Amino acid sequence: MGTRLGDLVERFGGQLVGDPNLEVQGIAPLDSAGASHISFLSNSKLRALAAQSGAAALIVAPLDDATVAATYEGARIVTTNPYAYFARAAQYFAALDDTPPPPGVHPSAVVHESATVDPSAHIGPNVTVDAGATIGAGVVIEAGCFVGRDAEVGEGSHFFANATFHARCKIGKRGILHSGAVIGTDGFGFARENGLYIKIPQTGRVLLGDDVDIGANTTVDRGAMADTIIEDGVKLDNQIQIGHNCHIGANTAMAGCVGVAGSAKIGKNCTFGGAAMVLGHLEIADNVHISSGSMVSRSVLEPGQYTGFYPLAKNAEWEKSAAIVRNLSSMREKIRTLEKQIKQLTEQAEQK
Amino acid sequence: MGTRLGDLVERFGGQLVGDPNLEVQGIAPLDSAGASHISFLSNSKLRALAAQSGAAALIVAPLDDATVAATYEGARIVTTNPYAYFARAAQYFAALDDTPPPPGVHPSAVVHESATVDPSAHIGPNVTVDAGATIGAGVVIEAGCFVGRDAEVGEGSHFFANATFHARCKIGKRGILHSGAVIGTDGFGFARENGLYIKIPQTGRVLLGDDVDIGANTTVDRGAMADTIIEDGVKLDNQIQIGHNCHIGANTAMAGCVGVAGSAKIGKNCTFGGAAMVLGHLEIADNVHISSGSMVSRSVLEPGQYTGFYPLAKNAEWEKSAAIVRNLSSMREKIRTLEKQIKQLTEQAEQK
Amino acid sequence: MGTRLGDLVERFGGQLVGDPNLEVQGIAPLDSAGASHISFLSNSKLRALAAQSGAAALIVAPLDDATVAATYEGARIVTTNPYAYFARAAQYFAALDDTPPPPGVHPSAVVHESATVDPSAHIGPNVTVDAGATIGAGVVIEAGCFVGRDAEVGEGSHFFANATFHARCKIGKRGILHSGAVIGTDGFGFARENGLYIKIPQTGRVLLGDDVDIGANTTVDRGAMADTIIEDGVKLDNQIQIGHNCHIGANTAMAGCVGVAGSAKIGKNCTFGGAAMVLGHLEIADNVHISSGSMVSRSVLEPGQYTGFYPLAKNAEWEKSAAIVRNLSSMREKIRTLEKQIKQLTEQAEQK
Repeated sequence: MGTRLGDLVERFGGQLVGDPNLEVQGIAPLDSAGASHISFLSNSKLRALAAQSGAAALIVAPLDDATVAATYEGARIVTTNPYAYFARAAQYFAALDDTPPPPGVHPSAVVHESATVDPSAHIGPNVTVDAGATIGAGVVIEAGCFVGRDAEVGEGSHFFANATFHARCKIGKRGILHSGAVIGTDGFGFARENGLYIKIPQTGRVLLGDDVDIGANTTVDRGAMADTIIEDGVKLDNQIQIGHNCHIGANTAMAGCVGVAGSAKIGKNCTFGGAAMVLGHLEIADNVHISSGSMVSRSVLEPGQYTGFYPLAKNAEWEKSAAIVRNLSSMREKIRTLEKQIKQLTEQAEQK
Repeated sequence: MGTRLGDLVERFGGQLVGDPNLEVQGIAPLDSAGASHISFLSNSKLRALAAQSGAAALIVAPLDDATVAATYEGARIVTTNPYAYFARAAQYFAALDDTPPPPGVHPSAVVHESATVDPSAHIGPNVTVDAGATIGAGVVIEAGCFVGRDAEVGEGSHFFANATFHARCKIGKRGILHSGAVIGTDGFGFARENGLYIKIPQTGRVLLGDDVDIGANTTVDRGAMADTIIEDGVKLDNQIQIGHNCHIGANTAMAGCVGVAGSAKIGKNCTFGGAAMVLGHLEIADNVHISSGSMVSRSVLEPGQYTGFYPLAKNAEWEKSAAIVRNLSSMREKIRTLEKQIKQLTEQAEQK
Repeated sequence: MGTRLGDLVERFGGQLVGDPNLEVQGIAPLDSAGASHISFLSNSKLRALAAQSGAAALIVAPLDDATVAATYEGARIVTTNPYAYFARAAQYFAALDDTPPPPGVHPSAVVHESATVDPSAHIGPNVTVDAGATIGAGVVIEAGCFVGRDAEVGEGSHFFANATFHARCKIGKRGILHSGAVIGTDGFGFARENGLYIKIPQTGRVLLGDDVDIGANTTVDRGAMADTIIEDGVKLDNQIQIGHNCHIGANTAMAGCVGVAGSAKIGKNCTFGGAAMVLGHLEIADNVHISSGSMVSRSVLEPGQYTGFYPLAKNAEWEKSAAIVRNLSSMREKIRTLEKQIKQLTEQAEQK
């Protein structure tokens, strides 16, 4: 199904230079776009590539427009953030191709009689919705998902197949739970007595705001007594672990395999690279960016980029450097000895 | 539902100072407890907070009791381990609020005719229990779980929604399998021939003792020929991977995202911080504590705390230190050269 | 059920020294094999153990045969790769014990009328197969799995319980998806505008070749616009994350907890130790081996073994070394100062 450029501009804004009746069938990156595509220039360094693009139309920023216009003959949509424009246009094209799952409850699903399911929601095969749960308008719960007792799923949220959302947890509007994600499992809390662990019941909830994405096989624990809170717009990639009683500020994003231990308080607009780890009870300020593979073992109260991983080397070289790292304090001792000796020598030299 | 302090003391011990008929509705931490709560002082440093607590009663240790009693006017339960007492009392209050799932097999569950399910067990919706499996008294298997052929689930164990427990594996009494946990998947074993991997069948089992907790999305592989063994009281948090043929000693606890490669033998009463990794075939003694983010690349035969992660720094500082780490051997060379030069200078000076 | 040695040799090759009518019941490692077992010597260092083995027969390499024959009195199968021979024989014995699941669709499974399921395939309880999906000959889809719209599962592939295989993805012949694995979830792609993340639809697929194994709770994201590609013979252990648009070359193997960020291109015959991480958009050549716990933050274009993790130490020692690592640039400054001072002293000494 195609779309007129005029329709796109009407929907998403931007200034069209070219024929509003020109139809495009989809969106594609610069290097693979053909005559039926619209493409986009999100990085000024790629201007040369844009000039050669076979796309029917290009989304460009004002500061690139003159240069592109000089050689590129297709239509242009000029807009301040071409990458965001691309994302919106791509969502639009994807929706054209998509067959949304039909409203209604699949006969194989088990929905407790006390649960409330909006008639516009889709409940897929082999789903279980427990007592008192509330499923909002337009929600999609795919096959094999579990929604626990008194849980609340906000309007337009989408749970992919085999996701698990436990009792009393809440997710706001337009949330996404990817397959295998588990929200509201017990936190890891024990008292110790005579060498044995005694479980501390985890009676808090997980509260997810609006527009929160939870990746595949990511886990978020419920709070011990208070709640675990994830604010609006937080994006968690796959295989992430969020411990009990954490608080993650709005629009913070974490890449795959990140771990956050219990009671950490993380600010807004932070980013965490893959496999970064945060110890428990720490505080991370707003606008902090942690590089991949870094262990955060103390609070970070100042915005900025932080890093801490051992640099990769050929194994033989690593063995050498690691052996020295192990003995750095002896190296420091040697330097101190040298300093003393030199001081002595210098004094002797001066006395002569 | 409330509880008399006298009932608590009768059930869990401790010395009550105050009215045994005083009723409390629940347990709460010092800073949020109100007039209907009992609270607890687990850390002497918080004595001042205890004195100001609005709780109706406090659980305190003998060594804190005099100080607390001087200013705090509520009732007190004096006991040697207030934190453990809190855990037990919290379990008790949680059970009062809890609606345990009813005994019986949900009609949508598929239980093989040769499986044995105790009449007191609960088998939830969309569960599958395969041939020859045994489900003990009081067991709860929530929605969407899978229990494989000839598997055995001990009395009082609880599988949360969408957990997977494979053929022939066993779990003892009072075990917990959180959602998405997978027990008894094939270990990662291959022979290599002409560049291709040939799968080695994994025919061992996973044997979990009593009181074992397995976190959400944690995986434990079955042994290759022998079994993978997890002893009584082991607590594994979420997103942990335990390789085939590992042996984990009683009452060892691991925080989220830990990985243990195949055939590692880990002692009793160990702790592993989040994202710690243990290489295969290593041995870890009893009472070893591994810090978060540390890679255990050799056996650890002496008890104690061990650590190994790169310290976090501002990215610019990390870049400097990482560059030097890469070239530590040249730094060592420089120091050696300096040592030689100084030795020469010193000898020259002495000769004069 | 037993097997004649003659049958084994007929099936898997090798030169038999001994009675072809001797029956063995199974295969076992050297130290536990008894009179009803065949065992194998995969490492010349274990020759002494082999000599004492109680096994009825041994699989040995030509270069070990003479030594073994001198003391060991059982039968021998001489073959160039005893470990691969063991793997094949073990597969054979395992299949003898195995009850393969029966062909057909379990009545509790929900298979869309437009899906194509080969009559020889097994579709277990509570499985969902969506519209247009194709399930090949001899495929086993265990309980609770999900196969999405238009997905294709090749001949002889096996999905263990509660695996998820999303729309339009393909897996070739003899593939294995372990429990909790999720193939084809959305990649982590967003545009940012005014501090908010705008989702970029992930419209590519995941294409898995033949003989690909995917471990328990491992996740592979679909491509953003192009596909994520995993070539023939790739083996992924548990808890691995593969980002969108990655390309993994044939017969590459990754141990548990590895993470690979989006658009990384990894060569053939590589190995990755547990918890290794690869940043996005990097290129890794063929035959590169990354040690456990190592962060790959730059492309690796030369074959070889690469490592980068902080060495483990007693915590007190680590604290010392980590403090110095943090201040390595001041140590370098001190060395420079020493070098200058010594140069001065040396010049002074020469002038005298």
